[in-house]
Amino acid sequence: MTNMLSQMGLEAALRDVGASRYHSLHPFHKLLHGGKLSKTQVQAWALNRYYYQACIPIKDAIVLSRLPDAASRRVWRQRIVDHDGEAPGDGGIARWLRLAEGVGLDPAYVESTAGILPTTRFAVDAYVHFVRDRSLLEAVASSLTELFSPTIIAERVAGMLANYDWVSKDTLVYFNARLTQAPRDADFALEYVKQHATTRAEQEKVIDALRFKCDVLWAQLDALYAAYVEPGHIPMGAFGSDEALARCA
Amino acid sequence: MTNMLSQMGLEAALRDVGASRYHSLHPFHKLLHGGKLSKTQVQAWALNRYYYQACIPIKDAIVLSRLPDAASRRVWRQRIVDHDGEAPGDGGIARWLRLAEGVGLDPAYVESTAGILPTTRFAVDAYVHFVRDRSLLEAVASSLTELFSPTIIAERVAGMLANYDWVSKDTLVYFNARLTQAPRDADFALEYVKQHATTRAEQEKVIDALRFKCDVLWAQLDALYAAYVEPGHIPMGAFGSDEALARCA
Repeated sequence: MTNMLSQMGLEAALRDVGASRYHSLHPFHKLLHGGKLSKTQVQAWALNRYYYQACIPIKDAIVLSRLPDAASRRVWRQRIVDHDGEAPGDGGIARWLRLAEGVGLDPAYVESTAGILPTTRFAVDAYVHFVRDRSLLEAVASSLTELFSPTIIAERVAGMLANYDWVSKDTLVYFNARLTQAPRDADFALEYVKQHATTRAEQEKVIDALRFKCDVLWAQLDALYAAYVEPGHIPMGAFGSDEALARCA
Repeated sequence: MTNMLSQMGLEAALRDVGASRYHSLHPFHKLLHGGKLSKTQVQAWALNRYYYQACIPIKDAIVLSRLPDAASRRVWRQRIVDHDGEAPGDGGIARWLRLAEGVGLDPAYVESTAGILPTTRFAVDAYVHFVRDRSLLEAVASSLTELFSPTIIAERVAGMLANYDWVSKDTLVYFNARLTQAPRDADFALEYVKQHATTRAEQEKVIDALRFKCDVLWAQLDALYAAYVEPGHIPMGAFGSDEALARCA
Protein backbone atom coordinates (compact mmCIF):
# COMPACT_ATOMS: atom_id res chain seq x y z
CA MET A 1 0.00 0.00 0.00
CA THR A 2 2.92 2.35 -0.72
CA ASN A 3 2.41 3.74 -4.22
CA MET A 4 0.39 6.91 -4.41
CA LEU A 5 -2.80 6.97 -6.44
CA SER A 6 -2.86 9.43 -9.31
CA GLN A 7 -5.10 12.46 -8.73
CA MET A 8 -7.68 10.88 -11.03
CA GLY A 9 -7.28 7.61 -9.14
CA LEU A 10 -7.96 9.36 -5.84
CA GLU A 11 -11.03 11.04 -7.31
CA ALA A 12 -12.24 7.69 -8.66
CA ALA A 13 -11.79 6.08 -5.26
CA LEU A 14 -13.79 8.88 -3.65
CA ARG A 15 -16.58 8.54 -6.20
CA ASP A 16 -16.61 4.79 -5.54
CA VAL A 17 -17.25 5.49 -1.87
CA GLY A 18 -20.22 7.61 -2.85
CA ALA A 19 -21.54 5.04 -5.27
CA SER A 20 -21.67 2.39 -2.56
CA ARG A 21 -22.25 4.35 0.66
CA TYR A 22 -23.95 7.68 -0.02
CA HIS A 23 -27.30 7.97 1.72
CA SER A 24 -29.20 8.23 -1.55
CA LEU A 25 -29.14 4.42 -1.30
CA HIS A 26 -30.78 4.31 2.13
CA PRO A 27 -34.21 2.65 2.46
CA PHE A 28 -35.54 5.66 4.35
CA HIS A 29 -34.77 7.95 1.42
CA LYS A 30 -36.42 5.50 -0.99
CA LEU A 31 -39.59 5.75 1.08
CA LEU A 32 -39.33 9.53 1.46
CA HIS A 33 -38.80 10.20 -2.24
CA GLY A 34 -41.30 7.58 -3.32
CA GLY A 35 -44.17 9.11 -1.38
CA LYS A 36 -44.37 6.15 0.98
CA LEU A 37 -44.06 8.03 4.27
CA SER A 38 -46.81 9.44 6.41
CA LYS A 39 -46.85 13.13 7.24
CA THR A 40 -45.57 12.33 10.74
CA GLN A 41 -42.66 10.38 9.32
CA VAL A 42 -41.77 13.24 6.97
CA GLN A 43 -41.98 15.61 9.94
CA ALA A 44 -39.58 13.40 11.91
CA TRP A 45 -37.15 13.58 9.00
CA ALA A 46 -37.38 17.36 8.72
CA LEU A 47 -37.08 17.81 12.50
CA ASN A 48 -33.97 15.69 12.80
CA ARG A 49 -32.33 16.99 9.65
CA TYR A 50 -32.62 20.50 11.11
CA TYR A 51 -29.99 19.64 13.72
CA TYR A 52 -27.55 18.65 10.98
CA GLN A 53 -28.21 21.87 9.09
CA ALA A 54 -27.87 23.99 12.21
CA CYS A 55 -24.45 22.49 12.96
CA ILE A 56 -23.01 23.04 9.48
CA PRO A 57 -21.85 26.64 10.11
CA ILE A 58 -20.38 25.50 13.44
CA LYS A 59 -18.51 22.73 11.64
CA ASP A 60 -17.38 25.10 8.89
CA ALA A 61 -16.23 27.74 11.37
CA ILE A 62 -13.98 25.11 12.94
CA VAL A 63 -12.56 24.17 9.54
CA LEU A 64 -12.13 27.86 8.69
CA SER A 65 -10.23 28.41 11.95
CA ARG A 66 -7.75 25.79 10.79
CA LEU A 67 -7.12 27.08 7.26
CA PRO A 68 -3.81 28.94 7.37
CA ASP A 69 -4.24 31.37 4.45
CA ALA A 70 -6.74 34.09 3.72
CA ALA A 71 -7.44 32.85 0.18
CA SER A 72 -8.63 29.45 1.42
CA ARG A 73 -10.57 31.05 4.24
CA ARG A 74 -12.38 33.41 1.82
CA VAL A 75 -13.51 30.39 -0.17
CA TRP A 76 -14.54 28.33 2.85
CA ARG A 77 -16.32 31.31 4.45
CA GLN A 78 -18.92 31.16 1.69
CA ARG A 79 -20.25 27.96 3.27
CA ILE A 80 -20.99 29.84 6.49
CA VAL A 81 -22.62 32.67 4.54
CA ASP A 82 -24.75 30.15 2.64
CA HIS A 83 -26.18 28.67 5.83
CA ASP A 84 -26.43 31.68 8.17
CA GLY A 85 -27.37 34.17 5.46
CA GLU A 86 -27.00 37.93 5.70
CA ALA A 87 -30.00 38.70 7.89
CA PRO A 88 -32.74 37.00 9.91
CA GLY A 89 -34.80 34.80 7.62
CA ASP A 90 -31.99 34.49 5.09
CA GLY A 91 -29.74 31.49 4.46
CA GLY A 92 -29.99 27.72 4.46
CA ILE A 93 -30.90 27.26 8.11
CA ALA A 94 -33.80 29.70 7.77
CA ARG A 95 -34.91 27.90 4.59
CA TRP A 96 -34.82 24.56 6.41
CA LEU A 97 -37.07 26.04 9.09
CA ARG A 98 -39.41 27.09 6.30
CA LEU A 99 -39.38 23.50 5.04
CA ALA A 100 -40.11 22.24 8.53
CA GLU A 101 -43.00 24.65 8.89
CA GLY A 102 -44.20 23.67 5.44
CA VAL A 103 -44.51 20.04 6.51
CA GLY A 104 -46.52 21.07 9.55
CA LEU A 105 -43.99 21.54 12.38
CA ASP A 106 -43.81 24.43 14.83
CA PRO A 107 -40.56 26.25 13.94
CA ALA A 108 -39.86 27.09 17.59
CA TYR A 109 -40.04 23.39 18.47
CA VAL A 110 -37.73 22.56 15.57
CA GLU A 111 -35.22 25.25 16.56
CA SER A 112 -35.17 24.00 20.15
CA THR A 113 -33.95 20.56 18.90
CA ALA A 114 -35.80 19.09 21.89
CA GLY A 115 -37.49 16.37 19.87
CA ILE A 116 -34.56 14.97 17.90
CA LEU A 117 -33.30 11.43 18.29
CA PRO A 118 -30.22 11.03 20.48
CA THR A 119 -28.50 9.24 17.61
CA THR A 120 -29.05 12.27 15.37
CA ARG A 121 -27.27 14.39 17.95
CA PHE A 122 -24.44 11.88 18.43
CA ALA A 123 -23.85 11.46 14.68
CA VAL A 124 -23.91 15.16 13.87
CA ASP A 125 -21.75 16.00 16.89
CA ALA A 126 -19.32 13.30 15.72
CA TYR A 127 -18.95 15.25 12.46
CA VAL A 128 -18.30 18.52 14.32
CA HIS A 129 -15.74 16.83 16.58
CA PHE A 130 -14.11 15.13 13.59
CA VAL A 131 -13.21 18.42 11.93
CA ARG A 132 -11.88 19.66 15.26
CA ASP A 133 -9.82 16.63 16.25
CA ARG A 134 -8.56 15.09 12.99
CA SER A 135 -6.02 16.50 10.54
CA LEU A 136 -7.04 19.47 8.41
CA LEU A 137 -6.78 17.26 5.34
CA GLU A 138 -9.32 14.84 6.82
CA ALA A 139 -11.54 17.70 7.93
CA VAL A 140 -11.71 19.09 4.39
CA ALA A 141 -12.15 15.60 2.93
CA SER A 142 -15.14 14.90 5.15
CA SER A 143 -17.10 17.56 3.27
CA LEU A 144 -16.83 15.66 -0.01
CA THR A 145 -20.29 14.12 0.17
CA GLU A 146 -21.18 17.36 -1.61
CA LEU A 147 -19.88 15.62 -4.76
CA PHE A 148 -22.98 13.46 -4.65
CA SER A 149 -25.68 15.73 -3.30
CA PRO A 150 -27.01 17.29 -6.54
CA THR A 151 -28.31 13.91 -7.70
CA ILE A 152 -30.16 13.16 -4.49
CA ILE A 153 -31.54 16.69 -4.37
CA ALA A 154 -33.03 16.33 -7.82
CA GLU A 155 -34.50 12.96 -6.89
CA ARG A 156 -35.91 14.27 -3.63
CA VAL A 157 -37.52 17.43 -4.95
CA ALA A 158 -39.08 15.67 -7.92
CA GLY A 159 -40.21 12.73 -5.81
CA MET A 160 -41.70 14.72 -2.96
CA LEU A 161 -43.53 17.17 -5.23
CA ALA A 162 -44.93 14.31 -7.27
CA ASN A 163 -45.99 12.16 -4.34
CA TYR A 164 -47.09 14.38 -1.44
CA ASP A 165 -49.82 16.82 -2.43
CA TRP A 166 -49.28 18.64 0.88
CA VAL A 167 -45.68 19.52 -0.05
CA SER A 168 -45.24 22.64 -2.16
CA LYS A 169 -42.38 24.06 -4.21
CA ASP A 170 -42.01 26.81 -1.61
CA THR A 171 -41.57 24.22 1.14
CA LEU A 172 -38.60 22.74 -0.75
CA VAL A 173 -36.96 26.03 -1.71
CA TYR A 174 -34.02 25.09 0.57
CA PHE A 175 -32.72 22.78 -2.15
CA ASN A 176 -32.64 25.27 -5.02
CA ALA A 177 -29.51 27.08 -3.87
CA ARG A 178 -27.81 23.82 -2.93
CA LEU A 179 -27.73 22.76 -6.58
CA THR A 180 -25.10 25.45 -7.26
CA GLN A 181 -23.54 25.75 -3.80
CA ALA A 182 -22.70 22.05 -3.40
CA PRO A 183 -20.74 21.62 -6.65
CA ARG A 184 -18.86 24.86 -6.04
CA ASP A 185 -17.94 23.70 -2.52
CA ALA A 186 -17.05 20.21 -3.69
CA ASP A 187 -14.79 21.50 -6.47
CA PHE A 188 -12.64 23.37 -3.94
CA ALA A 189 -12.50 20.49 -1.48
CA LEU A 190 -11.69 17.93 -4.16
CA GLU A 191 -8.86 20.06 -5.55
CA TYR A 192 -7.63 20.66 -1.99
CA VAL A 193 -7.36 16.97 -1.13
CA LYS A 194 -5.73 16.18 -4.48
CA GLN A 195 -3.05 18.80 -3.79
CA HIS A 196 -2.54 18.19 -0.09
CA ALA A 197 -2.56 14.38 0.15
CA THR A 198 1.11 13.84 -0.62
CA THR A 199 1.52 10.20 0.47
CA ARG A 200 -0.55 7.07 -0.09
CA ALA A 201 -1.29 7.01 3.63
CA GLU A 202 -2.72 10.53 3.42
CA GLN A 203 -4.79 9.54 0.41
CA GLU A 204 -6.21 6.62 2.39
CA LYS A 205 -7.07 9.01 5.24
CA VAL A 206 -8.92 11.19 2.73
CA ILE A 207 -10.94 8.20 1.53
CA ASP A 208 -11.60 7.09 5.11
CA ALA A 209 -12.78 10.60 5.99
CA LEU A 210 -15.37 10.40 3.24
CA ARG A 211 -16.45 6.95 4.45
CA PHE A 212 -16.80 8.43 7.93
CA LYS A 213 -19.02 11.19 6.62
CA CYS A 214 -21.16 8.65 4.76
CA ASP A 215 -21.47 6.75 8.06
CA VAL A 216 -22.62 9.97 9.76
CA LEU A 217 -25.38 10.45 7.20
CA TRP A 218 -26.37 6.77 7.03
CA ALA A 219 -26.55 6.32 10.81
CA GLN A 220 -29.02 9.22 11.06
CA LEU A 221 -31.32 7.52 8.58
CA ASP A 222 -30.95 4.14 10.30
CA ALA A 223 -32.08 5.80 13.52
CA LEU A 224 -35.03 7.52 11.79
CA TYR A 225 -36.05 4.25 10.16
CA ALA A 226 -35.89 2.31 13.43
CA ALA A 227 -37.80 4.95 15.40
CA TYR A 228 -40.45 5.92 12.86
CA VAL A 229 -40.79 3.07 10.34
CA GLU A 230 -39.69 -0.31 11.75
CA PRO A 231 -39.67 -1.44 14.55
CA GLY A 232 -41.10 1.98 15.42
CA HIS A 233 -39.50 2.24 18.88
CA ILE A 234 -39.33 5.98 19.56
CA PRO A 235 -36.89 6.83 22.40
CA MET A 236 -38.30 8.64 25.46
CA GLY A 237 -38.83 12.33 24.90
CA ALA A 238 -38.27 12.28 21.15
CA PHE A 239 -40.84 13.63 18.66
CA GLY A 240 -43.89 11.40 18.66
CA SER A 241 -43.05 9.59 21.90
CA ASP A 242 -45.61 9.30 24.71
CA GLU A 243 -43.61 11.73 26.83
CA ALA A 244 -43.38 14.30 24.04
CA LEU A 245 -47.09 14.00 23.29
CA ALA A 246 -47.93 14.31 26.98
CA ARG A 247 -45.89 17.48 27.22
CA CYS A 248 -47.93 19.01 24.41
CA ALA A 249 -51.25 17.90 25.84
CA MET B 1 -37.44 26.47 39.05
CA THR B 2 -35.39 28.38 41.62
CA ASN B 3 -35.54 26.43 44.90
CA MET B 4 -32.83 23.86 45.36
CA LEU B 5 -33.79 20.24 45.84
CA SER B 6 -32.68 18.67 49.09
CA GLN B 7 -29.82 16.21 48.74
CA MET B 8 -32.32 13.38 49.13
CA GLY B 9 -34.56 15.07 46.57
CA LEU B 10 -31.69 15.21 44.09
CA GLU B 11 -30.92 11.55 44.69
CA ALA B 12 -34.59 10.68 44.23
CA ALA B 13 -34.70 12.59 40.95
CA LEU B 14 -31.61 10.73 39.74
CA ARG B 15 -33.12 7.37 40.69
CA ASP B 16 -36.29 8.35 38.83
CA VAL B 17 -34.24 8.88 35.69
CA GLY B 18 -32.86 5.38 36.07
CA ALA B 19 -36.26 3.89 36.72
CA SER B 20 -37.62 5.27 33.45
CA ARG B 21 -34.58 5.43 31.16
CA TYR B 22 -31.91 2.93 32.20
CA HIS B 23 -31.19 0.38 29.50
CA SER B 24 -32.35 -2.53 31.60
CA LEU B 25 -35.73 -1.59 30.10
CA HIS B 26 -34.56 -1.88 26.49
CA PRO B 27 -36.17 -4.56 24.28
CA PHE B 28 -32.74 -5.78 23.18
CA HIS B 29 -31.77 -6.56 26.76
CA LYS B 30 -35.06 -8.36 27.32
CA LEU B 31 -34.20 -10.61 24.38
CA LEU B 32 -30.58 -11.05 25.47
CA HIS B 33 -31.40 -11.97 29.05
CA GLY B 34 -34.39 -14.08 28.08
CA GLY B 35 -32.40 -16.36 25.81
CA LYS B 36 -34.18 -15.12 22.71
CA LEU B 37 -31.13 -14.09 20.68
CA SER B 38 -29.14 -16.18 18.24
CA LYS B 39 -25.44 -16.70 18.77
CA THR B 40 -24.70 -14.16 16.03
CA GLN B 41 -26.88 -11.57 17.73
CA VAL B 42 -25.13 -12.17 21.07
CA GLN B 43 -21.80 -11.85 19.28
CA ALA B 44 -22.89 -8.52 17.79
CA TRP B 45 -23.75 -7.32 21.29
CA ALA B 46 -20.40 -8.43 22.74
CA LEU B 47 -18.46 -6.94 19.79
CA ASN B 48 -20.11 -3.54 20.05
CA ARG B 49 -20.06 -3.40 23.83
CA TYR B 50 -16.29 -3.90 23.68
CA TYR B 51 -15.87 -0.42 22.20
CA TYR B 52 -17.72 1.09 25.16
CA GLN B 53 -15.57 -0.85 27.61
CA ALA B 54 -12.36 0.09 25.81
CA CYS B 55 -13.22 3.79 26.01
CA ILE B 56 -14.02 3.80 29.74
CA PRO B 57 -10.40 4.32 30.90
CA ILE B 58 -10.03 7.05 28.26
CA LYS B 59 -13.17 8.73 29.60
CA ASP B 60 -12.02 8.32 33.20
CA ALA B 61 -8.54 9.67 32.45
CA ILE B 62 -10.17 12.82 31.11
CA VAL B 63 -12.30 13.15 34.25
CA LEU B 64 -9.25 12.49 36.40
CA SER B 65 -7.33 15.22 34.56
CA ARG B 66 -10.03 17.67 35.64
CA LEU B 67 -10.21 16.75 39.34
CA PRO B 68 -8.26 19.42 41.18
CA ASP B 69 -7.23 17.52 44.34
CA ALA B 70 -5.17 14.40 44.88
CA ALA B 71 -7.75 12.81 47.22
CA SER B 72 -10.45 12.86 44.51
CA ARG B 73 -7.98 11.71 41.90
CA ARG B 74 -6.91 8.73 44.02
CA VAL B 75 -10.52 7.65 44.26
CA TRP B 76 -11.26 8.19 40.56
CA ARG B 77 -8.01 6.47 39.53
CA GLN B 78 -9.41 3.18 40.78
CA ARG B 79 -11.80 3.17 37.82
CA ILE B 80 -8.85 3.19 35.42
CA VAL B 81 -7.14 0.45 37.40
CA ASP B 82 -10.32 -1.63 37.31
CA HIS B 83 -10.52 -1.54 33.53
CA ASP B 84 -6.85 -1.58 32.47
CA GLY B 85 -5.69 -3.91 35.25
CA GLU B 86 -2.13 -4.27 36.49
CA ALA B 87 -0.74 -6.43 33.68
CA PRO B 88 -1.66 -7.90 30.30
CA GLY B 89 -4.71 -10.09 30.66
CA ASP B 90 -5.84 -8.33 33.83
CA GLY B 91 -8.69 -5.86 34.24
CA GLY B 92 -12.16 -5.28 32.85
CA ILE B 93 -11.19 -4.77 29.22
CA ALA B 94 -9.26 -8.06 29.18
CA ARG B 95 -12.22 -9.80 30.85
CA TRP B 96 -14.56 -8.38 28.19
CA LEU B 97 -12.28 -9.84 25.52
CA ARG B 98 -12.58 -13.15 27.33
CA LEU B 99 -16.37 -12.81 27.18
CA ALA B 100 -16.18 -12.00 23.48
CA GLU B 101 -14.01 -15.04 22.85
CA GLY B 102 -16.35 -17.13 24.97
CA VAL B 103 -19.26 -16.28 22.69
CA GLY B 104 -17.23 -17.27 19.66
CA LEU B 105 -15.53 -14.10 18.43
CA ASP B 106 -11.89 -13.69 17.40
CA PRO B 107 -10.37 -11.41 20.08
CA ALA B 108 -8.11 -9.69 17.54
CA TYR B 109 -11.16 -8.77 15.45
CA VAL B 110 -12.93 -7.48 18.55
CA GLU B 111 -9.92 -5.40 19.63
CA SER B 112 -9.65 -3.87 16.16
CA THR B 113 -13.21 -2.47 16.53
CA ALA B 114 -13.47 -2.82 12.76
CA GLY B 115 -16.88 -4.49 12.87
CA ILE B 116 -18.75 -2.18 15.21
CA LEU B 117 -21.76 -0.16 14.17
CA PRO B 118 -21.07 3.49 13.40
CA THR B 119 -23.75 4.46 15.91
CA THR B 120 -21.90 2.55 18.64
CA ARG B 121 -18.84 4.63 17.88
CA PHE B 122 -20.76 7.91 17.74
CA ALA B 123 -22.61 7.26 21.01
CA VAL B 124 -19.54 6.13 22.94
CA ASP B 125 -17.43 8.97 21.54
CA ALA B 126 -20.21 11.37 22.57
CA TYR B 127 -19.71 10.18 26.16
CA VAL B 128 -15.93 10.72 25.96
CA HIS B 129 -16.42 14.19 24.48
CA PHE B 130 -19.07 15.03 27.09
CA VAL B 131 -16.66 14.59 29.99
CA ARG B 132 -14.12 16.69 28.11
CA ASP B 133 -16.38 19.54 27.04
CA ARG B 134 -18.99 19.91 29.79
CA SER B 135 -18.52 21.09 33.36
CA LEU B 136 -16.69 18.80 35.79
CA LEU B 137 -19.93 18.45 37.75
CA GLU B 138 -21.73 17.14 34.65
CA ALA B 139 -18.79 14.88 33.79
CA VAL B 140 -18.95 13.23 37.22
CA ALA B 141 -22.76 13.08 37.10
CA SER B 142 -22.70 11.24 33.77
CA SER B 143 -21.13 8.22 35.52
CA LEU B 144 -24.16 7.75 37.77
CA THR B 145 -25.72 4.97 35.70
CA GLU B 146 -23.50 2.87 37.97
CA LEU B 147 -26.25 3.36 40.58
CA PHE B 148 -28.40 1.00 38.51
CA SER B 149 -25.94 -1.48 37.06
CA PRO B 150 -25.89 -4.13 39.83
CA THR B 151 -29.51 -4.99 39.15
CA ILE B 152 -29.04 -5.44 35.42
CA ILE B 153 -25.84 -7.41 35.97
CA ALA B 154 -27.65 -9.88 38.21
CA GLU B 155 -30.46 -10.20 35.66
CA ARG B 156 -28.06 -10.63 32.78
CA VAL B 157 -25.78 -13.23 34.36
CA ALA B 158 -28.67 -15.30 35.64
CA GLY B 159 -30.58 -15.00 32.39
CA MET B 160 -27.73 -15.80 30.06
CA LEU B 161 -26.49 -18.78 32.11
CA ALA B 162 -30.02 -20.16 32.30
CA ASN B 163 -30.88 -19.68 28.65
CA TYR B 164 -27.75 -20.16 26.51
CA ASP B 165 -26.09 -23.51 27.09
CA TRP B 166 -23.07 -22.27 25.12
CA VAL B 167 -22.41 -19.46 27.64
CA SER B 168 -20.37 -20.44 30.70
CA LYS B 169 -19.71 -18.83 34.08
CA ASP B 170 -16.15 -18.18 32.95
CA THR B 171 -17.40 -16.29 29.90
CA LEU B 172 -19.31 -13.90 32.15
CA VAL B 173 -16.58 -13.42 34.77
CA TYR B 174 -16.36 -9.75 33.68
CA PHE B 175 -19.47 -9.02 35.71
CA ASN B 176 -18.33 -10.45 39.04
CA ALA B 177 -16.02 -7.58 39.91
CA ARG B 178 -18.52 -4.99 38.68
CA LEU B 179 -20.94 -5.97 41.47
CA THR B 180 -18.59 -4.36 43.99
CA GLN B 181 -16.84 -1.80 41.78
CA ALA B 182 -20.00 -0.11 40.50
CA PRO B 183 -21.58 0.65 43.89
CA ARG B 184 -18.24 1.90 45.22
CA ASP B 185 -17.86 4.20 42.19
CA ALA B 186 -21.46 5.34 42.36
CA ASP B 187 -21.24 6.19 46.08
CA PHE B 188 -18.39 8.63 45.41
CA ALA B 189 -20.04 10.21 42.37
CA LEU B 190 -23.41 10.57 44.11
CA GLU B 191 -21.83 12.23 47.15
CA TYR B 192 -19.79 14.44 44.82
CA VAL B 193 -22.81 15.77 42.92
CA LYS B 194 -24.76 16.28 46.16
CA GLN B 195 -21.92 18.41 47.53
CA HIS B 196 -20.98 20.30 44.37
CA ALA B 197 -24.37 21.15 42.87
CA THR B 198 -24.95 24.36 44.80
CA THR B 199 -27.81 25.87 42.78
CA ARG B 200 -31.02 24.45 41.36
CA ALA B 201 -29.65 25.05 37.88
CA GLU B 202 -26.61 22.93 38.69
CA GLN B 203 -28.84 20.23 40.10
CA GLU B 204 -30.81 20.21 36.84
CA LYS B 205 -27.54 19.90 34.90
CA VAL B 206 -26.67 16.88 37.05
CA ILE B 207 -30.01 15.25 36.24
CA ASP B 208 -29.64 16.12 32.54
CA ALA B 209 -26.15 14.60 32.52
CA LEU B 210 -27.59 11.32 33.77
CA ARG B 211 -30.34 11.47 31.14
CA PHE B 212 -27.62 12.04 28.54
CA LYS B 213 -25.75 8.96 29.72
CA CYS B 214 -28.94 6.92 29.57
CA ASP B 215 -29.39 8.15 25.99
CA VAL B 216 -25.82 7.02 25.18
CA LEU B 217 -26.58 3.50 26.43
CA TRP B 218 -30.09 3.32 24.93
CA ALA B 219 -29.00 4.53 21.47
CA GLN B 220 -26.42 1.76 21.27
CA LEU B 221 -29.09 -0.85 21.88
CA ASP B 222 -31.48 0.80 19.42
CA ALA B 223 -28.74 0.51 16.79
CA LEU B 224 -28.03 -3.13 17.68
CA TYR B 225 -31.74 -3.95 17.55
CA ALA B 226 -32.21 -2.28 14.16
CA ALA B 227 -29.12 -3.90 12.63
CA TYR B 228 -29.41 -7.40 14.06
CA VAL B 229 -33.04 -7.97 15.10
CA GLU B 230 -35.51 -5.79 13.19
CA PRO B 231 -35.43 -4.56 10.40
CA GLY B 232 -32.03 -6.31 10.28
CA HIS B 233 -30.34 -3.72 8.07
CA ILE B 234 -26.63 -4.09 8.84
CA PRO B 235 -24.58 -1.08 7.68
CA MET B 236 -21.79 -1.69 5.13
CA GLY B 237 -18.68 -3.14 6.67
CA ALA B 238 -20.18 -3.91 10.08
CA PHE B 239 -20.09 -7.40 11.62
CA GLY B 240 -22.32 -9.71 9.65
CA SER B 241 -22.64 -7.45 6.60
CA ASP B 242 -21.94 -8.76 3.10
CA GLU B 243 -18.74 -6.73 2.93
CA ALA B 244 -17.48 -8.03 6.26
CA LEU B 245 -18.30 -11.62 5.34
CA ALA B 246 -16.58 -11.19 1.96
CA ARG B 247 -13.45 -9.90 3.67
CA CYS B 248 -13.30 -13.04 5.80
CA ALA B 249 -13.94 -15.39 2.86
